[in-house]
Amino acid sequence: MTVTTPLHDALRARFGDCFSTAAAVRDHHGKDDSHHPTVPPDAVVFAQSTDDVAFTVRACARHRTPVIPVGAGTSIEGHVQALRGGISIDMSGMNRVLAVRPDDLDATVEAGVTRLQLDRELRGTGLFFPVDPGADATLGGMAATGASGTTTVRYGTMRDNVVSLTAVLASGEVVRTGGRARKSSAGYDLTHLLVGSEGTLAVITKLTVRLHPVPEAMAAAVCAFPGLGEAVQSVVEGVQLGVPVARAELLDATAVKAVNLHSGFDYDEVPTVFFEFHGTEAEVRAHGATIEEICRGLGGTAFRYARRQEERTRLWKARHDVYPAILALRPGSHGLTTDVCVPVSRLAECISATRDDMMTASIPWGIVGHIGDGNFHAVFLIDPDSPAELAEAEAVNERIVRRALAMEGTCTGEHGIGMGKIGFLHEEFGDAGVGAMRAVKAALDPEGIMNPGKVVEDRGSSP
Amino acid sequence: MTVTTPLHDALRARFGDCFSTAAAVRDHHGKDDSHHPTVPPDAVVFAQSTDDVAFTVRACARHRTPVIPVGAGTSIEGHVQALRGGISIDMSGMNRVLAVRPDDLDATVEAGVTRLQLDRELRGTGLFFPVDPGADATLGGMAATGASGTTTVRYGTMRDNVVSLTAVLASGEVVRTGGRARKSSAGYDLTHLLVGSEGTLAVITKLTVRLHPVPEAMAAAVCAFPGLGEAVQSVVEGVQLGVPVARAELLDATAVKAVNLHSGFDYDEVPTVFFEFHGTEAEVRAHGATIEEICRGLGGTAFRYARRQEERTRLWKARHDVYPAILALRPGSHGLTTDVCVPVSRLAECISATRDDMMTASIPWGIVGHIGDGNFHAVFLIDPDSPAELAEAEAVNERIVRRALAMEGTCTGEHGIGMGKIGFLHEEFGDAGVGAMRAVKAALDPEGIMNPGKVVEDRGSSP
Repeated sequence: MTVTTPLHDALRARFGDCFSTAAAVRDHHGKDDSHHPTVPPDAVVFAQSTDDVAFTVRACARHRTPVIPVGAGTSIEGHVQALRGGISIDMSGMNRVLAVRPDDLDATVEAGVTRLQLDRELRGTGLFFPVDPGADATLGGMAATGASGTTTVRYGTMRDNVVSLTAVLASGEVVRTGGRARKSSAGYDLTHLLVGSEGTLAVITKLTVRLHPVPEAMAAAVCAFPGLGEAVQSVVEGVQLGVPVARAELLDATAVKAVNLHSGFDYDEVPTVFFEFHGTEAEVRAHGATIEEICRGLGGTAFRYARRQEERTRLWKARHDVYPAILALRPGSHGLTTDVCVPVSRLAECISATRDDMMTASIPWGIVGHIGDGNFHAVFLIDPDSPAELAEAEAVNERIVRRALAMEGTCTGEHGIGMGKIGFLHEEFGDAGVGAMRAVKAALDPEGIMNPGKVVEDRGSSP
Repeated sequence: MTVTTPLHDALRARFGDCFSTAAAVRDHHGKDDSHHPTVPPDAVVFAQSTDDVAFTVRACARHRTPVIPVGAGTSIEGHVQALRGGISIDMSGMNRVLAVRPDDLDATVEAGVTRLQLDRELRGTGLFFPVDPGADATLGGMAATGASGTTTVRYGTMRDNVVSLTAVLASGEVVRTGGRARKSSAGYDLTHLLVGSEGTLAVITKLTVRLHPVPEAMAAAVCAFPGLGEAVQSVVEGVQLGVPVARAELLDATAVKAVNLHSGFDYDEVPTVFFEFHGTEAEVRAHGATIEEICRGLGGTAFRYARRQEERTRLWKARHDVYPAILALRPGSHGLTTDVCVPVSRLAECISATRDDMMTASIPWGIVGHIGDGNFHAVFLIDPDSPAELAEAEAVNERIVRRALAMEGTCTGEHGIGMGKIGFLHEEFGDAGVGAMRAVKAALDPEGIMNPGKVVEDRGSSP
């Protein structure tokens, strides 16, 4: 595709220095945190407002040119790669927290506000935003990919915590998907249609999100287990009992080793669960005691508690750094990360079969999991110059996904489809389901300009 | 429109006695629980299976004839009225609970299973399904209308409690919108697109829903207040503090009078809140004490507790019967019920302005509300033979909706759009939002056969 110069001229005239065709800028915007290759856009617009986004989308629509929204670039299924060229819209300049409303337990933010920035701006309000994918992603990106993470077992995913959105449609029209009421049954649920749509239906520019009161007490606890099965089972039993665990993160021996090396801990290198409990002092004690009893019954060690804020922060920072930490075990490697999620009753079986499968692989790997949700990640450390290793990891991933689907699970618990899992979407939803998704895509983006090549295959009609 | 006899012949051949054109049957299926007039379909199919529904939809698609799914008929915005004739599919025969899975805290049911039936079938499992709209609606109808109710402040709406759906699309294809994983970010969220779509995009035939552990302890408490404002404020302050109140139902003096007459209570006929608390014994005591302290500070009476199961059941049955109880205050009247929902910080102001407005009305009215969610209902008792009264109530409703929208609220918290609120949908979402909804409708139902005339206006292209 040849880039239409009139489009670039129009964008340059409007945006000046906030429009760039520099190679370094383009490359930076055509790459995420995964093994997927860099595919740069033709140019980048740095948006400062919903109007900027609407102007850009309208201009691109006139020239039938793709539009790719980019937040922090921390996604890992090739969401931001400009597969058919076009204009990337960098959302990071839209980073204002527009309102925090303690009385309604909500906040309205621009899409480029990051998770840690919102954390900082909420300090002192007694409120927090719970969704925590680990990376310091933008809230807009988290909504667009339907992100979740370590606290989802207690507080839910982005789907559960986005109240409403402002977004720019493929026509350039600005839509507000709802107000700020805690519930509504007015019309089709455009909010949930756009959450997880990965920029293929609209560009999210503002979000109203739910906030939660900071718990009176919080305590983290670490428990080591004789095997992966017992570690998984401890959480499954806790969830089944209805204990409101706030976090329950599995690390296999490899992941613990990586955490020790990267973050200076000295944990036994065996399957381990990092727990967290939130509530009143009495609730935190009671929940911890119940879960510890379950763990002991499964051969787990006594809990090593981290109660002070600094200790907890250090522990969760180590957990958040586990992905680079695992990659560092094989210097120069790229990660291929699986993301299946299954009903919790099937999780132990699914992880065990996965481990047995991976034992035969020639590539190093580790497993981490948000096991209260039934979601785990196997990370393969692949040599970026070895097509054979990539093929081997992809073959294992394919088996992992098929195993999860056979257990009524999903091919992606939280990373999204991007370009990496388009094939699996069909296996998960069949002709009727993917057909309905394609019909929605064609209805809202008839020219196929919105992040083409992602989520649903386009059938040649796009630019 | 003339009914095509070949369609009736095809349906009669397949369904035999489960196909009816009897006037009484047709009338019964063309009427809900509201003031909206009866509009009967041309015929009714009594479906026993997803295959039955798919057969019926395919046959109707061939003959470009409307299809209207009907559950218990308890909706109140004209959802089941056959505005353009066609075939109603009675879902009440699809009433099997297909699976209850305590390990995964979920159940799969056919769409015709009712709320009370599921309650009964879950007895002894230690689990319950929380969404409680009052009426003994079908689960399929509750999903289709995005229902919620008395427990939503704690446990969420249908949107929060439906894991996935099986549904028949306008083409007759059967789609499953997801598996049973607790979360997924795979593709567009078809589950949430269908929840609340009121039969206009697909016919829901099966649902997998979340179950919750029955709390160790439950207690209800009744508190009377000097005025509506104080009653509302008590709940708003509790929610803002993060106290996990399980129910918080407002009844104005009229509603209390109706409950006293209908259910044999002797409450003071002043604004009153029925609370419920769920948790461990200690939590129930603590939550109750915190809320009672707030109430006392606002001039509320000491809590009258109902702790025993029979007492609680009697109290909530009285609350559920409040709609017929209020109607009975004016024998022969029909109800016109408003349903706005606003951010909780605006609720007291919204209810107060609404009451001042209604004081000028010539028609009797009462107010009840799910005030922890910011949702309340004003019920007008209108003479069904008086167009003037209907017009007056509609004018007040219009002002109530505009007031709520100006407060970033919604025209319907839980009743849906049906045919009663189509005009307001446009005020709430504007051209861009309604345009997006219409595009989705046209994409998934190009012939306009799915419950036409509801949610989004069709523009003459329908049968």
